Amino acid sequence: MRKKIISARKFIKPSYSYLVEKKRDGGEFTDEEIRYLVDSILDEEIPDYQQSALAMAVYFQNMSAQEMAVFSEEMMLSGEVLDLNRISRPKVGKYSTGGVGDKTSLVLGPLAAASGVLMPHMNGVDEEYIISNLDKLSAIPNFNPTLDLKQFKDQLSKIGCTFSEQDEEIAPVERILYDLRLKTGTIPCLPLITGSVLSRKLSAGADYLVVDVKWGNGAFVKDLEQAKQLARTITRVARSMKRRCVALVTDMNQPLGDTVGTALELKEAIDLLKGEGPEDLQELVLKLGMEIVRLAGVAGSTLSAKQTVQKHLKDGSALQKFKDMIAAQGGDISFIDNPDKFPVAKHVRKLPAPKRGYVHTINAGLIAEGVQKLAVQKNGKYDASVGVSEIKKVGTQVKQGEPLMMIHYNDESKMEVALEYLKTAYRLAPKRPNPPELVVERVA
Amino acid sequence: MRKKIISARKFIKPSYSYLVEKKRDGGEFTDEEIRYLVDSILDEEIPDYQQSALAMAVYFQNMSAQEMAVFSEEMMLSGEVLDLNRISRPKVGKYSTGGVGDKTSLVLGPLAAASGVLMPHMNGVDEEYIISNLDKLSAIPNFNPTLDLKQFKDQLSKIGCTFSEQDEEIAPVERILYDLRLKTGTIPCLPLITGSVLSRKLSAGADYLVVDVKWGNGAFVKDLEQAKQLARTITRVARSMKRRCVALVTDMNQPLGDTVGTALELKEAIDLLKGEGPEDLQELVLKLGMEIVRLAGVAGSTLSAKQTVQKHLKDGSALQKFKDMIAAQGGDISFIDNPDKFPVAKHVRKLPAPKRGYVHTINAGLIAEGVQKLAVQKNGKYDASVGVSEIKKVGTQVKQGEPLMMIHYNDESKMEVALEYLKTAYRLAPKRPNPPELVVERVA
Repeated sequence: MRKKIISARKFIKPSYSYLVEKKRDGGEFTDEEIRYLVDSILDEEIPDYQQSALAMAVYFQNMSAQEMAVFSEEMMLSGEVLDLNRISRPKVGKYSTGGVGDKTSLVLGPLAAASGVLMPHMNGVDEEYIISNLDKLSAIPNFNPTLDLKQFKDQLSKIGCTFSEQDEEIAPVERILYDLRLKTGTIPCLPLITGSVLSRKLSAGADYLVVDVKWGNGAFVKDLEQAKQLARTITRVARSMKRRCVALVTDMNQPLGDTVGTALELKEAIDLLKGEGPEDLQELVLKLGMEIVRLAGVAGSTLSAKQTVQKHLKDGSALQKFKDMIAAQGGDISFIDNPDKFPVAKHVRKLPAPKRGYVHTINAGLIAEGVQKLAVQKNGKYDASVGVSEIKKVGTQVKQGEPLMMIHYNDESKMEVALEYLKTAYRLAPKRPNPPELVVERVA
Repeated sequence: MRKKIISARKFIKPSYSYLVEKKRDGGEFTDEEIRYLVDSILDEEIPDYQQSALAMAVYFQNMSAQEMAVFSEEMMLSGEVLDLNRISRPKVGKYSTGGVGDKTSLVLGPLAAASGVLMPHMNGVDEEYIISNLDKLSAIPNFNPTLDLKQFKDQLSKIGCTFSEQDEEIAPVERILYDLRLKTGTIPCLPLITGSVLSRKLSAGADYLVVDVKWGNGAFVKDLEQAKQLARTITRVARSMKRRCVALVTDMNQPLGDTVGTALELKEAIDLLKGEGPEDLQELVLKLGMEIVRLAGVAGSTLSAKQTVQKHLKDGSALQKFKDMIAAQGGDISFIDNPDKFPVAKHVRKLPAPKRGYVHTINAGLIAEGVQKLAVQKNGKYDASVGVSEIKKVGTQVKQGEPLMMIHYNDESKMEVALEYLKTAYRLAPKRPNPPELVVERVA
């Protein structure tokens, strides 16, 4: 499966507990030690209890840039690495740490493709908070989320973008570790996130990388400083792997856009692909889109990057790419042409403001949880029709009784549960708060 | 097996990953949470990879005194708790974090018994560094290290001391956790050590506890401050469990006594039981013995404690108790009367001093490792006859070529390997160093 690198100098295999102790005490792993660990995970030689103890030690003791570069590289090499060299267009990966109501990836893939940039996209398990891109696309009848590596390459070559499940042969060690991290409190571990992102994105054929690190109550990175550190870490490690990378640190202290919910979000994405939709998402699509086209060398200056992005949204070419992609993956594009065909919920009610004032803060995480309560069905799948819309954002003035949002639901009892989350998410105050800054920092 | 405590208020079981995350973030577990965790380990409900991640989180984030008290209590209650109430004599447990050449436990059990104090002793896996008490006693033909709980109680009642393997029914959760800690870099974790010591010693019937926390290059606690902290932690937690405990922090920067090796150490223990033997060990036996008899209330003043200990060593009553114990456990006491019967190694050679000077430092850990190399046989068992003797201690002046120790061996090739460790253990210097303090701190 992978090509083993044969070292000239003999490497004496250390015990796994020695390696755990070394990291526990703040030691730096040699390249060989990291290679040995990744091999041992792939070969199922190292027991999971030693992996999890090591992951927790890394959480507390961190890794150096060199350790992370080797770790990412080795995780990448643990499986297939897509060779897209025969396609001459530049290949840019986009990664987001995940946000509530974020529809940008769905827009940026087709937008990049329309601009002559390949965007190979495989859904990672941590790709989106709550509702993944593939969850959203599954609202389109017959859409096929599973592409094998050949189909994936062919579609990239023909159309320029894909949305599919992560192939089993891509970075298998990343997958094993990720599953373990989920259960052992080691998801928010900077070196492991970095390794995860880089190994996956680079395996899937990206030469450049645009990263959206979200911070706030709706992101898994709650702390701004930590988000900045993650952005800097990913870009630095990518650079040491000879890949250019730009990271934006963006706000996730309220939902992005006006909606949260499967079909509701998909409709908003279609608006955005037409250059319409909520302001905050338009801005984020523009900022991330500009980074993509500049990194790919399609646009040189800031101005030309902006024009490139705006052109492909306005002239319908991004939307057309989206339809081409959906069609290539078997989906019914009549739903894109006529979004009213998407299932709608039986009932819509407002969440009334309990008093007059300004929306002071919104806990986006609670909104995501509320929507999840509305949507999760007995079979574990999401009801595509439910969610919330017309979300009043931070800084908006409301009268008592005026809707803070509209709740779309099919089941009264689920709505009651969801309501508790949604209510609690809002804090009103008499004074207008300072609006949060959407893009806080750019790291290149 | 254990009596479950039924709480009046309903406890909603949290997920294990929530508990890992809580500790990772420095949270304090509630009593119910700790009870739930211990139950989950006993019932094999919590996967080992979550246990090990949690243990590593505890390593970095510590536990409060309250958490440790509940943890120790719950681990104790996870199995049988010996009820020795029908025996009216005071019961004192002795625990050492383990040292190279330490023979004190073998002496203190019979000494306590001779003084009218019960000392229930079960060998824990971490009881001794390198050569355990039971390893040493196994040099006596027919000695039986396995007592069931009834035999254990009967012998305690009749003779007053025991040395046996830890019964499977004693603190089973401690045993499970310990095995996992060994492989996951979480042995030197203060709260887990504390829980381990207290649950085991109190399960085995001790009402009072004397603890010897060793620090230095031959102990697993290398750092003096950490050793002091461990001593304070154990005594504080024991107190909050309503048990009186005295801890001494003692030096382990050179082997204790003149010998390291199974039969060699046993012979030294017999000397000590007669009130003879090397000065450092005589001092440690006296200090720990005094704590035992004072804690048990057998002696009131320091002077009377000293007299009690010295009397039972000088008058042969401690030695007699040792023989009674060995006989009760099936051992051939003619070896105690005539230690020359113990197997001796075929060869003895000196480790020559490479230059003249003073013994400046000795790495006791390396000496233990060297002896291990001499002793370990193909079947994993120790060769009782080998080891080192006449160890020159720190501060001793030597001429070039004079022996730093005598090496007792049977196999030339093993000796060659051991020699590397033993040589490296010694540092000579031209000036006399300050002699290390044997008892650094007393915590009560």
